[in-house]
Amino acid sequence: MADAAVARYGRVRLATEALAGGLSAEDAGAQAMPDASPVKWHLAHTTWFFETFVLVPRAPGYRPASPEFRFLFNSYYDTVGERPRRSERGLLTRPSLAEVWEYRRAVDTAMSALLEREGVRVERLVDLGLAHEEQHQELIVTDALALFARHPLEPAWHETASAPSLPGAGWLDREGGRVAIGHDGVGFAFDNELPRHAVLLRRHRIARRPVTGGEYLAFMADGGYRQPLLWQDDGWECVRRYGWNAPEYWSYRDGAWTAMTVAGRRPVNPEAPVCHVSWWEAEAYARWAGKRLPTEEEWEDAADSFDSGMVWEWTASPHRPYPGWRAPTGAFGEYNGKFMAGRFVLRGGSLATPAGHCRKTYRNFFPPSARWQFSGMRLAEDV
Amino acid sequence: MADAAVARYGRVRLATEALAGGLSAEDAGAQAMPDASPVKWHLAHTTWFFETFVLVPRAPGYRPASPEFRFLFNSYYDTVGERPRRSERGLLTRPSLAEVWEYRRAVDTAMSALLEREGVRVERLVDLGLAHEEQHQELIVTDALALFARHPLEPAWHETASAPSLPGAGWLDREGGRVAIGHDGVGFAFDNELPRHAVLLRRHRIARRPVTGGEYLAFMADGGYRQPLLWQDDGWECVRRYGWNAPEYWSYRDGAWTAMTVAGRRPVNPEAPVCHVSWWEAEAYARWAGKRLPTEEEWEDAADSFDSGMVWEWTASPHRPYPGWRAPTGAFGEYNGKFMAGRFVLRGGSLATPAGHCRKTYRNFFPPSARWQFSGMRLAEDV
Amino acid sequence: MADAAVARYGRVRLATEALAGGLSAEDAGAQAMPDASPVKWHLAHTTWFFETFVLVPRAPGYRPASPEFRFLFNSYYDTVGERPRRSERGLLTRPSLAEVWEYRRAVDTAMSALLEREGVRVERLVDLGLAHEEQHQELIVTDALALFARHPLEPAWHETASAPSLPGAGWLDREGGRVAIGHDGVGFAFDNELPRHAVLLRRHRIARRPVTGGEYLAFMADGGYRQPLLWQDDGWECVRRYGWNAPEYWSYRDGAWTAMTVAGRRPVNPEAPVCHVSWWEAEAYARWAGKRLPTEEEWEDAADSFDSGMVWEWTASPHRPYPGWRAPTGAFGEYNGKFMAGRFVLRGGSLATPAGHCRKTYRNFFPPSARWQFSGMRLAEDV
Amino acid sequence: MADAAVARYGRVRLATEALAGGLSAEDAGAQAMPDASPVKWHLAHTTWFFETFVLVPRAPGYRPASPEFRFLFNSYYDTVGERPRRSERGLLTRPSLAEVWEYRRAVDTAMSALLEREGVRVERLVDLGLAHEEQHQELIVTDALALFARHPLEPAWHETASAPSLPGAGWLDREGGRVAIGHDGVGFAFDNELPRHAVLLRRHRIARRPVTGGEYLAFMADGGYRQPLLWQDDGWECVRRYGWNAPEYWSYRDGAWTAMTVAGRRPVNPEAPVCHVSWWEAEAYARWAGKRLPTEEEWEDAADSFDSGMVWEWTASPHRPYPGWRAPTGAFGEYNGKFMAGRFVLRGGSLATPAGHCRKTYRNFFPPSARWQFSGMRLAEDV
Repeated sequence: MADAAVARYGRVRLATEALAGGLSAEDAGAQAMPDASPVKWHLAHTTWFFETFVLVPRAPGYRPASPEFRFLFNSYYDTVGERPRRSERGLLTRPSLAEVWEYRRAVDTAMSALLEREGVRVERLVDLGLAHEEQHQELIVTDALALFARHPLEPAWHETASAPSLPGAGWLDREGGRVAIGHDGVGFAFDNELPRHAVLLRRHRIARRPVTGGEYLAFMADGGYRQPLLWQDDGWECVRRYGWNAPEYWSYRDGAWTAMTVAGRRPVNPEAPVCHVSWWEAEAYARWAGKRLPTEEEWEDAADSFDSGMVWEWTASPHRPYPGWRAPTGAFGEYNGKFMAGRFVLRGGSLATPAGHCRKTYRNFFPPSARWQFSGMRLAEDV
Repeated sequence: MADAAVARYGRVRLATEALAGGLSAEDAGAQAMPDASPVKWHLAHTTWFFETFVLVPRAPGYRPASPEFRFLFNSYYDTVGERPRRSERGLLTRPSLAEVWEYRRAVDTAMSALLEREGVRVERLVDLGLAHEEQHQELIVTDALALFARHPLEPAWHETASAPSLPGAGWLDREGGRVAIGHDGVGFAFDNELPRHAVLLRRHRIARRPVTGGEYLAFMADGGYRQPLLWQDDGWECVRRYGWNAPEYWSYRDGAWTAMTVAGRRPVNPEAPVCHVSWWEAEAYARWAGKRLPTEEEWEDAADSFDSGMVWEWTASPHRPYPGWRAPTGAFGEYNGKFMAGRFVLRGGSLATPAGHCRKTYRNFFPPSARWQFSGMRLAEDV
Repeated sequence: MADAAVARYGRVRLATEALAGGLSAEDAGAQAMPDASPVKWHLAHTTWFFETFVLVPRAPGYRPASPEFRFLFNSYYDTVGERPRRSERGLLTRPSLAEVWEYRRAVDTAMSALLEREGVRVERLVDLGLAHEEQHQELIVTDALALFARHPLEPAWHETASAPSLPGAGWLDREGGRVAIGHDGVGFAFDNELPRHAVLLRRHRIARRPVTGGEYLAFMADGGYRQPLLWQDDGWECVRRYGWNAPEYWSYRDGAWTAMTVAGRRPVNPEAPVCHVSWWEAEAYARWAGKRLPTEEEWEDAADSFDSGMVWEWTASPHRPYPGWRAPTGAFGEYNGKFMAGRFVLRGGSLATPAGHCRKTYRNFFPPSARWQFSGMRLAEDV
Repeated sequence: MADAAVARYGRVRLATEALAGGLSAEDAGAQAMPDASPVKWHLAHTTWFFETFVLVPRAPGYRPASPEFRFLFNSYYDTVGERPRRSERGLLTRPSLAEVWEYRRAVDTAMSALLEREGVRVERLVDLGLAHEEQHQELIVTDALALFARHPLEPAWHETASAPSLPGAGWLDREGGRVAIGHDGVGFAFDNELPRHAVLLRRHRIARRPVTGGEYLAFMADGGYRQPLLWQDDGWECVRRYGWNAPEYWSYRDGAWTAMTVAGRRPVNPEAPVCHVSWWEAEAYARWAGKRLPTEEEWEDAADSFDSGMVWEWTASPHRPYPGWRAPTGAFGEYNGKFMAGRFVLRGGSLATPAGHCRKTYRNFFPPSARWQFSGMRLAEDV
């Protein structure tokens, strides 16, 4: 039992390191933009999470080797205290990447000892820490991509499997009615997936697959980015202010649309899901197509009947607490609870999401203008 | 029948003019901030609404005396075409206030003729125009107040009835279950109140009256504006960026809290509903009180059992389309439909809302940072 | 003697009122942009100047009818005290335009009485007040033009004499050597024209007339706004940030360049001086032409030999104190003394400058990005 | 001769590397703010300078190993072409620091060969390149300090000799009259030091030493940062917007003022020159002291009679071309020529200026708000 916990802990931690392994100290230290973080920061912050929330309260005699890390690598926990400004994480040149690797080693050693000693008594805490680490694994990919996309030479980084072409389109007819939504409490879930509760759904149809690059190109060709009537008011403001005319990272070169990816710049695959669109674009596309985005409840209710996991799928639902939700006590109340306004829910997971991390009740969320995540969408319609 | 329509049209139009009557050309022409509009602009825009959407399409032979007004006084209808920038409405010194009064006279004459001739055949259009005008009556008050509050001399404007002290506090126990929400289609309603649909509510309690100034002062005294853990992340960012430490228009002078009102600066009445708070503040207050905001469905379901109408009440619900909602065709699809992200629903109406304008299914909405509206809140809690 | 002083006072004051006379309360109340002020504010501030600096200290028994005006209409004198924010002068809807006219009357009455009683004992103070008022006469024109240029209908305001075509081009050869610069102290001058002092000038040539619209069009046609090598670094930043491609108020319509003027939009006259260019544009034009701007000393030394007064002419000289300059004591030290960095000197006067206001030692100054003034340039070159 | 050139080249290049030697790849890659550059960028850009302006045009057969560096490490030369945005130099994680070292080696090898072959025929070009490199040596110090000052742990970097206490105060009486200013053309000088020309100076006095920390503390204690009358208008705007209340990097801790330095945070030495003040602060201090800043000509004329070289000394003079100045042809015309507006001249050099780099005709220049340079001031007064 303890062995299994130690082994699982090690697997997740190693996966993070494998991701970051190919990056130089400079690559790992730079911050592409205020929304993104340096990879080195992700490596340190995930370690800080175990140190702060597991080792310090639960491992008697554990002494942080670098007490200033409690401050330096706090992301947003006011319960824990002050922290550097988010937009200045790229200025934290000390500790070095090598020292952060060492920090990981030291915490891993202490965690292994604790897991062997305490076993299931710390299981839930460790589960949260590992789920947290997996979230940052995906952020390492999105944030490094944001960095490389801003580099004039557009370097490739991972020879990654690119998004596969999708199976044939089509619709699932859904009866609606009273359905149960949210996590059932068996196994790990984030607090915002709880409590399980009933909702009423109308009859509707939901697409079998996400919208593809080719479909999105048709929207672009039809002047989608020039028709204010397709857009929410604030979305149209984004289009004009930022000059949006294609998904993030797309560029028209030598007669064809290309997209910057972790494998460098590549032609857009018209059969693969469109990616790096904001909620505003997802919603405008749906309106153009004469459809709408599914609510997160419609998505969850149908999720056993379609394939997902290629791109995060924007839903029609703002990220709000489920009926009867209570914030966890202490710092964990800040984990999701202070981001419950101004964000929309994404469901399903992406190719950058670690295997096994996601589930159908999983609620990811980002502001409607965010485009640097692996975000696309699926359509729905009333019938 | 036609007489009644003409009379009702005249009553609403006169009410607008009564509100604006005491203002000089300068007062009516200035724009306090980009979110607010000059009173003169409100007088013209509401007239433009009847001209553009009723007279031009439905009154054969009607010729706009000033065709450029179609452009000048368009608020946000892309269907109608281009328009001046919202933030520059205060620069529209031509036409003058006197010319706008004339514009109102000319359109009123044509409208009366049309109403006598067409009667019920234009009733729904005119209902919408009048409801629209009533919304702008309230905006005239909020926007003039925003202007006078920025004037160093803080002039009084209306000797208005101030907010009454509230009846005793207390809670309504609500069973929840399956309830019908939304307008039943009898009489006028805005498109966003439709369609009527069923939702499931949990058992809960809802307060009999809105939060009072005195209760809000206790939150302030307890350091409410200094405790990040009470706030949503983006709300806390507002607190810091704008230095919020009290509701909009409040100022501590000579040992007591005062508030700028349409009757000038007045002491805060601890027994009256707190007003001019943002959604962020409403939500933080609720968390501090160990409660939460009601959802808009909970509010609507209980609305027959409590008094409302003193302040608009922020709810826990983002402004999103009801299940099965369809945007009205043409320009009216823009009326509410492009503001369905980034805003929260307010319910109930304020002392500045024209009598008879509001109803329990009415969905007002503003961004969570807005404070210049007459906005307060009511609490709820799970049981 | 006193009669002459009273008469002169009256003439200047009346000239201000003649300028503003055609404007409605709305026109006079609006503020086009933070750099400009409402005409009503100019009317009040020039009056405030006499009240604050002449009547209050020198007219025993004078009591300001509205003590709050001391605060409301202070422009930038920290010696006098606090004041409203410059960017919010358009929100000062109280006092009304009518009340400002009354304020002028009251102050004029008191000033006339004082002038009759005190005569030459207040002459220098009154001279300064009248020179100040004349400066604001020109600002009334520039600021109203800035307002009307932002109005979608581009209203005409004054049927003004437009800029005349210029006499033939050509150069004046200047020997240079030791020359005296600055005002000789006989008659009125602003403090920044003092003290008179010697400078050494190199041999050079200076143009007989300012650069014309036609010459500037050649610069534009030659890609002047697209060649970074012609520009100062910060000027090029302006070109890109604001998308400059022609002088302020110019617009290409129906195959020809037009300019917004106080008489409405008019075709650009290629024979008249180019106007509404920033220092950045003036300097880039000069570089493109293979010449340079004259220094203010070169300009002043040659001024008796050419015609000027059609446009303010940007010089090569930053606005800095003359050697040995001492700030006047009290508030008048702020008149020019706190604007001696970040501005360039303009010489000569424009068609909007009141007759008799300017002289060859006169030093006007504005930041290098300013374009709403009547600003052009004359060329020079080394030989 | 060639040997001497090679040796001198090597000495300057090594000095750069010695400075940067103690920095990790992260330290060298981060950009503290848009005005500063990463150390790695300085290492590469100085090398680019030799490659672009010496090797490519003058070394037949030389082939850049990485042609993309021509774009990546161009600072601001429009003559050379496009370049990355200045504010995103910290995102250039590729090439790595190690690759930049290699780039230096390759260019150094080619330069040594060229110097041996061409000798004096490239001497002036190489002189410029070395003077350029020395300027960046100082920028390496200022920019790394800006970075470490933003790091929450305020790391020390160099155990540097700190600023020495200054000899006794006092004044030099200067007769003024006609004096020669500017470089005499013997040996290297930047183009903006030319041509030598005569100016007239008034009689005045100039201080024997720069203003000290102790003197500046008296200004602070006397409310210098709270008295608008001491400040230029735009300087006072900086004080308010940025909350300035002491020189950059100063902080009041445990009862004493400290300053962040390259050796970490240290107590302010009241006997050493005050450093890290903007021109605005220098000018306000001078006004408070009842003196003024010297003009650059006064400074240069007296420079043989006082010690300088501890801090760069702000002068009263805007950076403008000397009479008769001509921009060098080609890219070198951009070296200083496009920064001749909006900057003030500093004279004298600092402890971070390489030995032998400065001379009394040297004109350094920065915008009046700049504080991250080693900038102080000396006083003067009229007599």
